[in-house]
Amino acid sequence: MPENFQTPRGTRDFLPEEMIRREAVINTVKKVFETYGFSPFETPAFENFELLAAKGSGGDAIKDQIYYFKDKSDRELGLRFDLTVPMARVVANNPQLPKPFKRYCIARAWRYEEIRKDRFREFWQCDVDTVGSSSMESDTEILAVAVDSLEALGFKKFCVKLNNRKILSALIDFVNAPEKKKYDVFRAIDKLDKFGEETVKDELKAAGLKPKQIRELFKFITIEGSPGEVIKKGEKILQSSIGSQGLEELKKIVELSKSYGFTDKIVIDFNLARGLDYYTGPIFEVVDMSGKNIGSLAGGGRYDDLIELFGGRPTPATGISLGIERIVEVMKQEKMVKLPKTNVKVFVANVNEEVKKDTIKIAQELRKNGISCQVDLMSRKISKQFEFADNLGVAFVLTVGPKEVKKNKFKLKDMKTGKEQELSLEEIIKKMTSER
Amino acid sequence: MPENFQTPRGTRDFLPEEMIRREAVINTVKKVFETYGFSPFETPAFENFELLAAKGSGGDAIKDQIYYFKDKSDRELGLRFDLTVPMARVVANNPQLPKPFKRYCIARAWRYEEIRKDRFREFWQCDVDTVGSSSMESDTEILAVAVDSLEALGFKKFCVKLNNRKILSALIDFVNAPEKKKYDVFRAIDKLDKFGEETVKDELKAAGLKPKQIRELFKFITIEGSPGEVIKKGEKILQSSIGSQGLEELKKIVELSKSYGFTDKIVIDFNLARGLDYYTGPIFEVVDMSGKNIGSLAGGGRYDDLIELFGGRPTPATGISLGIERIVEVMKQEKMVKLPKTNVKVFVANVNEEVKKDTIKIAQELRKNGISCQVDLMSRKISKQFEFADNLGVAFVLTVGPKEVKKNKFKLKDMKTGKEQELSLEEIIKKMTSER
Repeated sequence: MPENFQTPRGTRDFLPEEMIRREAVINTVKKVFETYGFSPFETPAFENFELLAAKGSGGDAIKDQIYYFKDKSDRELGLRFDLTVPMARVVANNPQLPKPFKRYCIARAWRYEEIRKDRFREFWQCDVDTVGSSSMESDTEILAVAVDSLEALGFKKFCVKLNNRKILSALIDFVNAPEKKKYDVFRAIDKLDKFGEETVKDELKAAGLKPKQIRELFKFITIEGSPGEVIKKGEKILQSSIGSQGLEELKKIVELSKSYGFTDKIVIDFNLARGLDYYTGPIFEVVDMSGKNIGSLAGGGRYDDLIELFGGRPTPATGISLGIERIVEVMKQEKMVKLPKTNVKVFVANVNEEVKKDTIKIAQELRKNGISCQVDLMSRKISKQFEFADNLGVAFVLTVGPKEVKKNKFKLKDMKTGKEQELSLEEIIKKMTSER
Repeated sequence: MPENFQTPRGTRDFLPEEMIRREAVINTVKKVFETYGFSPFETPAFENFELLAAKGSGGDAIKDQIYYFKDKSDRELGLRFDLTVPMARVVANNPQLPKPFKRYCIARAWRYEEIRKDRFREFWQCDVDTVGSSSMESDTEILAVAVDSLEALGFKKFCVKLNNRKILSALIDFVNAPEKKKYDVFRAIDKLDKFGEETVKDELKAAGLKPKQIRELFKFITIEGSPGEVIKKGEKILQSSIGSQGLEELKKIVELSKSYGFTDKIVIDFNLARGLDYYTGPIFEVVDMSGKNIGSLAGGGRYDDLIELFGGRPTPATGISLGIERIVEVMKQEKMVKLPKTNVKVFVANVNEEVKKDTIKIAQELRKNGISCQVDLMSRKISKQFEFADNLGVAFVLTVGPKEVKKNKFKLKDMKTGKEQELSLEEIIKKMTSER
């Protein structure tokens, strides 16, 4: 077979068994998003390159990291690298959208990156955002959605790390670090949990910070304790207006989280910085704590300037992205979902070709009642039909023969237990529909 | 706003109202597909160009009709132009897949084409295919799935047009037309219903057919009557082995359709040819008959050679594609779906900021019971909250005030009728969950 008849490098096919699992995960989080009043929303797979490379978006360097192409009229295009930039474009273009605009989007994005285990060039993202509200109520609600989603999927031990870009900016001022090195400092700080003190100190030094500045900075970013304690200690150090504002926002989130019921999961972590430049307020990361080295499950924050950067009116916004690819992987490894291999519930087997029509009629009756079933399409012998059904992973096989049709009594075999029952079609339908 | 901050030409954004409608349509057909035992399945958005341009796939000319690009390692890629070619690749690459392999795929494809009303460069396709079975039982089942899907969506008057590429090939022999002009003749014939006799005759002449050949051909392709009559008349004319085989296959489909219950919808139409070259057996088209000039709703056929062309073992296959974009458009125009503007059921309004926490707690209770709701995130006055809720299109507004919380009696306003009820939270939950 020609090599080029394979999937392109960094992409995957999803065969039914894998797809059924992914759909189960996606449907679970969709249901949670919808109970919180978020609506589905889609944008094109590709965008005009100018948008992807705009300030606040991917920037100039993005061309090397995306799939870039031109259409036949020489328009510059690129596959979207995330779901936030297209959403911000839509909001900028549609000022009539009532606010708050609450949307979710579970869809593909593409990045031309080094391929590693669990990192692909085509991947799914799962974003939920609230646009138009500057209130901490939105941020808290976004966190509640993430917590509820993960719990609905079966995650039990995880924490919600919180920080605020305003606090980090105040910290830059406090240690007298150069404003233009701000994002370098943020990126260095963010590595503390993953790479340890030495790496961070080296990077801070490289960013031009002096030992004294690094010491002061470390004193702050390593503050530990309950959310109340951490905020109190922070207030003693950062007394600038911007710093107080950031701390005040975190206080509000902690307070509001009580109504949502996830206060026990909050950890204020001043070394959380998040990689993206566009955050302006609270930033968050949901981290697995099961001790299984799973890491981050979700991340996000407030980005009040992005929509204006894309030509829209000044519009505050906040959101979170669930790491859906990692979540699916972890759930598979940890066997957190017990999913059937197939959505097909019953295989309706025929003992010979003469009863084929009856078999089809019975299958149609099951289908009318919403029961997923298959019939033989290969003119196989009954034993081979059972083999196929077993291989497919169906829960039941119903056998149709001339006698069975006459009596309206069919053998229904439970493929897990091996037990057989003799039931009328009506009884079978009742059993199948009540079981769901 | 810069022009390039708009959607790329030929693509669309789907705002929530539109998305909710599309999802309702997609979920309806998915449910039907699954009752027939078809499984979900996905492939990458782009493929290696060599595959897209392969024989049996898009051919050499495809480069001008697709979004073509190279990755940074100069690999030639292209956005997929349909869902059949990637599926055939997957089956060719995975000979271990149990047969029949029954999959559906509802996903995007892209073509760089002239933009017309209802024709976009990014569009959704909705395919359902059975791979591995050469039996007419598969073709009949595929047709039953299409019929059931359309009926589930509310379509009432439509017919299933049937023909067979074997019959058309026999016809080419019968009128002594040159074999290498076969596909030109097919494409000409296919235009009869849409463009009339003159156009077809002109195209047949251009394909090199003589007046006598054209007359003979027309006598055959204009045969009318019940399926039984049309087949009988066809048998009298086409007596070659390949012709008889094609007619025999159609007879079987008509016979089997009785068990599925859609025989009354079948029209044998010898001028149905379908555009694609890869069909090898029965071909079908589902056509709206409501008299509203809606045209084709679905189309497909058998393609027994495609998977082998892609390097797989010889593997028969048949499938149909629902014209999902057109279906959504028609359903919108004809008001066939009465969908709410929003998935949000209840807006939980707060009379002042003091009861905000209670409001959130009540919302969380509703959500735990699977009821979709929103709370105010904009610190709006109660009257403005009602205005927003009305605009959003929610069915109910629940008002939370200090007295209401104390008594556990809340006003629930039905936004359609304007009627208000005083209910406890438990009663509200009961009402909302029983109503679904």
